Amino acid sequence: MDFLFLERMNIGIDMMGGDEAPSEIVAGIDQYLKVGNAHLFLIGQVERIKPLVSEWNLPADRYTLVNATQVIDMHDHPTRALKEKPASSISIGFQLLATEKIDAFISAGNTGAMLVGSLYAIKPIEGVLRPTISTIIPKENGSTGLLLDVGLNSDCKPEQLNQFAVMGSVYAQQILGIENPRVGLLNIGEEEGKGNLLAQAAYPLLKENKHINFIGNIEGRDILVDKADIVVCDGFTGNIILKMAESLHGITRRKGIDHEYFDLFNFENYGGTPVLGISKPVIIGHGISKGRAFKNMILLAQKMIDKDVMQMMKAEVEA
Amino acid sequence: MDFLFLERMNIGIDMMGGDEAPSEIVAGIDQYLKVGNAHLFLIGQVERIKPLVSEWNLPADRYTLVNATQVIDMHDHPTRALKEKPASSISIGFQLLATEKIDAFISAGNTGAMLVGSLYAIKPIEGVLRPTISTIIPKENGSTGLLLDVGLNSDCKPEQLNQFAVMGSVYAQQILGIENPRVGLLNIGEEEGKGNLLAQAAYPLLKENKHINFIGNIEGRDILVDKADIVVCDGFTGNIILKMAESLHGITRRKGIDHEYFDLFNFENYGGTPVLGISKPVIIGHGISKGRAFKNMILLAQKMIDKDVMQMMKAEVEA
Repeated sequence: MDFLFLERMNIGIDMMGGDEAPSEIVAGIDQYLKVGNAHLFLIGQVERIKPLVSEWNLPADRYTLVNATQVIDMHDHPTRALKEKPASSISIGFQLLATEKIDAFISAGNTGAMLVGSLYAIKPIEGVLRPTISTIIPKENGSTGLLLDVGLNSDCKPEQLNQFAVMGSVYAQQILGIENPRVGLLNIGEEEGKGNLLAQAAYPLLKENKHINFIGNIEGRDILVDKADIVVCDGFTGNIILKMAESLHGITRRKGIDHEYFDLFNFENYGGTPVLGISKPVIIGHGISKGRAFKNMILLAQKMIDKDVMQMMKAEVEA
Repeated sequence: MDFLFLERMNIGIDMMGGDEAPSEIVAGIDQYLKVGNAHLFLIGQVERIKPLVSEWNLPADRYTLVNATQVIDMHDHPTRALKEKPASSISIGFQLLATEKIDAFISAGNTGAMLVGSLYAIKPIEGVLRPTISTIIPKENGSTGLLLDVGLNSDCKPEQLNQFAVMGSVYAQQILGIENPRVGLLNIGEEEGKGNLLAQAAYPLLKENKHINFIGNIEGRDILVDKADIVVCDGFTGNIILKMAESLHGITRRKGIDHEYFDLFNFENYGGTPVLGISKPVIIGHGISKGRAFKNMILLAQKMIDKDVMQMMKAEVEA
């Protein structure tokens, strides 16, 4: 059945990444295998993974163990780690992805190393100026939006913001299931012409862009209400917003403010964030990811492959 | 008693500025006069103010009415308004301030017009590259910090951030009563060298600056906790943060989340924000300011004059 084997969807998972690796990852895989259909490549120190997969009784035909003797930890320097540790789970994961042995790669390990691998080991989508990372933003009315960039591009050109809008729109439509997503430009005033030089220059590009549903400027007060589905900004501003929003979860918990709204600011729940603009799905998880987050990340990878989101982004960016 | 007259502190108030002008302003003045000692110049349409000061029975020797027949409203174009309406309360206020008839000017009216007046009618402090506006930031532990710039300078140079740190430090010490205030640079990483080009270039300037207590980078997650007393950033980022923080008050209220912590995000309570870096105190209030906010703004102006904060900033910036 070689044909079936070739058609099979293969997702690689870094078994050493995250605060509770590999045990919570195996727990997440167990959850995933009950609902998903991909074949999983479990990449890491086999002697640590084997007892766990036995213990959880994972079906042997659903996964392949890939031994990676080294581990990139949180203290490794992101740009040097991949070179210095070629036998690490992250390095091997990117090798497998680059050579098409796997169709997607997931890790909750060293974020910097994951970004470096995404940028240098995997080809960008043709026409994409710079890949980007996004975050889900919880809204007052319970819906979720997308904010991007959140830190990969701390200085941006207007053309990049315009591409973020396109990539975000494809992602929101295909993965978040938002029809005709409204794109807002994060800015410090409502009217065209307001803002810093970047926002002033990006506005006309977004306005002219026929591939997106641009609704104009979005102010800081609009981020958490349901005004836009996609908010584009430079990675400096986006990262500050993301981390400030994340901090609300801890602050409210420490203050004993118990409300489901602030549970939405527990970003662990969202699984991971994909790197958009590269030719293969790479999903980066929160270091504190637990079983459910890993299950969600694998499901996200499966959905991105199923829908061929990268190909759609290519078509939209080129058009 | 000419001598006493000359020594008197005169504070000008725009009686037409704010959603509930002039009634809430008169209410605030009444509160102020019971605790403060400045003489007030009430600038606005006298036929509207007179009945109110009678009604409130304000002591006649504590104020002077100044007739201003025109009104700059929220819809007037900020840069054109002052020229087009020279008999407006805001225009006359700046004229009185520029000619030293008053020592400080307060308005909750058109923010743009107030900023234009501050920048063009009033001299900047010698050596200051650009004036700035700040906001109080409520902290998890109940203390308050200062964030600046929050929108006057949407694109900044590193030297400006360095001056914001100096001006913010003087303000925090003299007005907020914070000894040796900790200055943080808003950034997207902890270590020196992180961040966008602006933050990378500003870091060494702040580190070398002997006039401030620089503690390094502050991330988005640190803004609402008590890590720094003063957080410096460009006005684009600062404005987004301020407006996002402000929106939390409305969101939590609408969701019925009743907790004193989120009352701190009701920025009306803080009165107004001073324009720092100009030679005279100008305080800009929230449009929705009520009596208490006006009282606090007049007290703030009095304190800034009393402590001669502008002169201290001049000394620190020049040194």
